[in-house]
Amino acid sequence: MSASTRPLANDVFLRALRREPVPYTPVWLMRQAGRYLPEYNATRARAGSFLALAKTPALATEVTLQPLDRFPLDAAILFSDILTVPDAMGLGLYFAEGEGPRFERTTADEASIAALAVPDMARLRYVFDAVASIRTALAGRVPLIGFSGSPFTLACYMIEGGGSGADFATVRKLAYARPDLMQRIIDVNAEAVALYLDAQIAAGADAVMVFDTWGGLLSAAAYRRWSLASMRAVLQRLRPGPGGRAIPTIVFTKGGGQWLDDIAACGAAAVGLDWTVDLAAARQRVGSRVALQGNLDPLVLLTDPATVAREAAAVVEAAGPAPGHIFNLGHGIQPTTPPEHVGVLVETVHRRSRALLAGA
Amino acid sequence: MSASTRPLANDVFLRALRREPVPYTPVWLMRQAGRYLPEYNATRARAGSFLALAKTPALATEVTLQPLDRFPLDAAILFSDILTVPDAMGLGLYFAEGEGPRFERTTADEASIAALAVPDMARLRYVFDAVASIRTALAGRVPLIGFSGSPFTLACYMIEGGGSGADFATVRKLAYARPDLMQRIIDVNAEAVALYLDAQIAAGADAVMVFDTWGGLLSAAAYRRWSLASMRAVLQRLRPGPGGRAIPTIVFTKGGGQWLDDIAACGAAAVGLDWTVDLAAARQRVGSRVALQGNLDPLVLLTDPATVAREAAAVVEAAGPAPGHIFNLGHGIQPTTPPEHVGVLVETVHRRSRALLAGA
Repeated sequence: MSASTRPLANDVFLRALRREPVPYTPVWLMRQAGRYLPEYNATRARAGSFLALAKTPALATEVTLQPLDRFPLDAAILFSDILTVPDAMGLGLYFAEGEGPRFERTTADEASIAALAVPDMARLRYVFDAVASIRTALAGRVPLIGFSGSPFTLACYMIEGGGSGADFATVRKLAYARPDLMQRIIDVNAEAVALYLDAQIAAGADAVMVFDTWGGLLSAAAYRRWSLASMRAVLQRLRPGPGGRAIPTIVFTKGGGQWLDDIAACGAAAVGLDWTVDLAAARQRVGSRVALQGNLDPLVLLTDPATVAREAAAVVEAAGPAPGHIFNLGHGIQPTTPPEHVGVLVETVHRRSRALLAGA
Repeated sequence: MSASTRPLANDVFLRALRREPVPYTPVWLMRQAGRYLPEYNATRARAGSFLALAKTPALATEVTLQPLDRFPLDAAILFSDILTVPDAMGLGLYFAEGEGPRFERTTADEASIAALAVPDMARLRYVFDAVASIRTALAGRVPLIGFSGSPFTLACYMIEGGGSGADFATVRKLAYARPDLMQRIIDVNAEAVALYLDAQIAAGADAVMVFDTWGGLLSAAAYRRWSLASMRAVLQRLRPGPGGRAIPTIVFTKGGGQWLDDIAACGAAAVGLDWTVDLAAARQRVGSRVALQGNLDPLVLLTDPATVAREAAAVVEAAGPAPGHIFNLGHGIQPTTPPEHVGVLVETVHRRSRALLAGA
C-alpha cells in the first residue's frame, strides 16, 4: 500500500477539521516538538543548530515524532520554520542566539522588491523530503500537518530582516506610504506559499496550516488588504492531495480575534484562536461554518498540574459539544514547560471531552 | 471667578464625550506632550529626567501646554506617568534609559502582597498640584484630562518590576496559579486608583482616562475578572467634580477590540480604541451607548503629509456623522514624529469632520 492511501489509525483530528462527530476532542500543540523536551535538545545538539535540524530530513523526522512517543497527541506537525520560503528566495535565514529568526538581506527598497521572485521549489526539497520521511515514519498513527508562514508574516521579516521588537514599524509605514511596493511583496509571497503548500501536500501532508503571526498588528483595513486577502488567495489555489484527497486547511492570525467573522469566511476549514479569544463566544459567532482550533494560554503549562487540569477543562467546556473543536494552545509551547504538565493536559482534554460528548 | 466654574472657550471635547452634537470632531493625541517636540526635549533637559519633569508642577505645566501652543488641539492631558500610584506605595519608580519604567522593588510574593496598602494621597500631591497649576495656566482654553494606569496594568509592573518584553509571563502565571494573591493586588490598586482620580477631579480635571495598557494580554475570562471588573469598580466610586460637575470618563484597553461590547458596558462615557479596531464596525456595535476615541495608527505620522491627510480622513469617515467621536491615535505618538505632520493631522481632522457633519 502506498503512503498516499494508507489508512489512519487515528483520524479524529481530520474528522474534527471537517466538523464531523468525534468520540473526544483531538489535541496537538503548537511547537510540540521543541525545547521543553530533553530528547529534542539532544537531537538539536547533535544537529548543531536549529536550521541544520530543520534542513536534515532524518533529524526533522526524529524530532517530529518525539512528542508523539511521550503523549497521545492526535496530530503530528512537520518540524520546520515559518520562514523557509524567503530563505529559498535567497535572503539568508539565520538564527541569532536568543534573538529569533533573522535574514542577512532585507527586502525594503524599490530595487530589492522589484528583484523578488517566486523561488524554485527545488530549493525547498529538504522540506518535502522531510514531509515524505515523517509520513513514512508515522505509518498512519496520526495525520501530518504541513505549514507555512502567511504572505504578510513572511513580508514582515523580509522587510525588517528580523523580529523588530514585534511592532514592525517599517512594515506598517511601507504599507501606508508605498502600497504598490507592499502589494508586490505580498503577491510574490502568496504565489510562493501556494506552491510550497501544494508541494507539501503532494509529499503527503494530510492538512496544512498558515501561520499569520503578525497580521494582528495591522489596522482592520490593512489586515483585510495585506494579510487576509493573500491567505484567501493561497487557499483558493491549493490543489487536492494524492488520489484526490481533500486537504483541510487552518489559518491562524495571532491577535485576530476581533476579525473572526472575516477570517471564518476566508475559505479555511478551521480558524486558529489565540488565548485572548472567548472560545464560547467565537463558536456562537461562527456557528457551523468552520472548525475552531485553540486556545489555552501556554503560560498555564508553567503553573502546576491542578491548575493545568482546571484550565484545560475550562477550554473544553467553552468549546462545548458542537462538532469542530481541535484543542491547542493559543500560542507556541514555552521552552520552560515541564513535560509532565503536557501529559496532564492531553489526558484532561481527552477525558473531559469524552464525558462532555457522551453527555451531549 | 474660581477655576472650578470658569467657562471653557472650547468644550467640543466634553460635548463629544457626552455624545452631543459638535461642529467638528475634537482631537487630542496620546503623549501629545512628548519627545517629538523640540521644546519638550529642552524642558526635559532642564529638569534632568522624565520623573523630575513629572514631579515638578511648574515644569509639568509648561510641557502640558506646549502642544497646545503649536496645534489647535481640543484637550490638554496632564503630563505625568501611568505608574505614579505604585510609586507612592513605595515601590521606587525609575526609568532606565531606553528601557521604559521599572520599579526597584517587586510585589510578587505572599509577604509583599500582604504588605501592600493604599498609599496616602499626600504622597501624590505633586500630581494634584500639577493639575491645579495646568488648569490655571489653561485659563479655560480647553478641558484638562486627568488619568491613571488601570488596576491591572499597575499590577503588571508591580509584579514584574518592569515591562518584561511585553508578555508579562509572571503576571499571567500568578493569575492562574494564585488568584487569591492577584485579587488582593487588584483590590488595593482599584481603591488607590479611585482615590487618585477623585483627587485629580477635585484639583480640576475636567475628564479622566484609565489606561489599561496590558489588559489585552489576558484571556477573555481573565480580562473580565482582573482588568474590566476593577475598572468598573473604579468608575463606580468616582465622585462628581467641584460644584457637582459631571466628570466624563474614558477607558482604553490596548488590544481590547474583541471585547468592545463588554468594555462599552463598564460605565465609562467613552471607550478608547487602538488602531487595529474597525471604527465603523465598532460604532455599529455600540450604537449610541458610548463615545469612541481613536484610532489612527501612530506610524502613519511617520510617513508623509499626503499619507497623513489621507489616513486621518479615512478615520473621520469611518467614525461617521453619529455624535460621540473623539479623534486620537490608536497608541502614543512616536518620538520620531515630525511635528509638521501633527499639524497636517489636526487640520485634516477639523476640516474633514466639519464637512462631514455639515452634510449630515
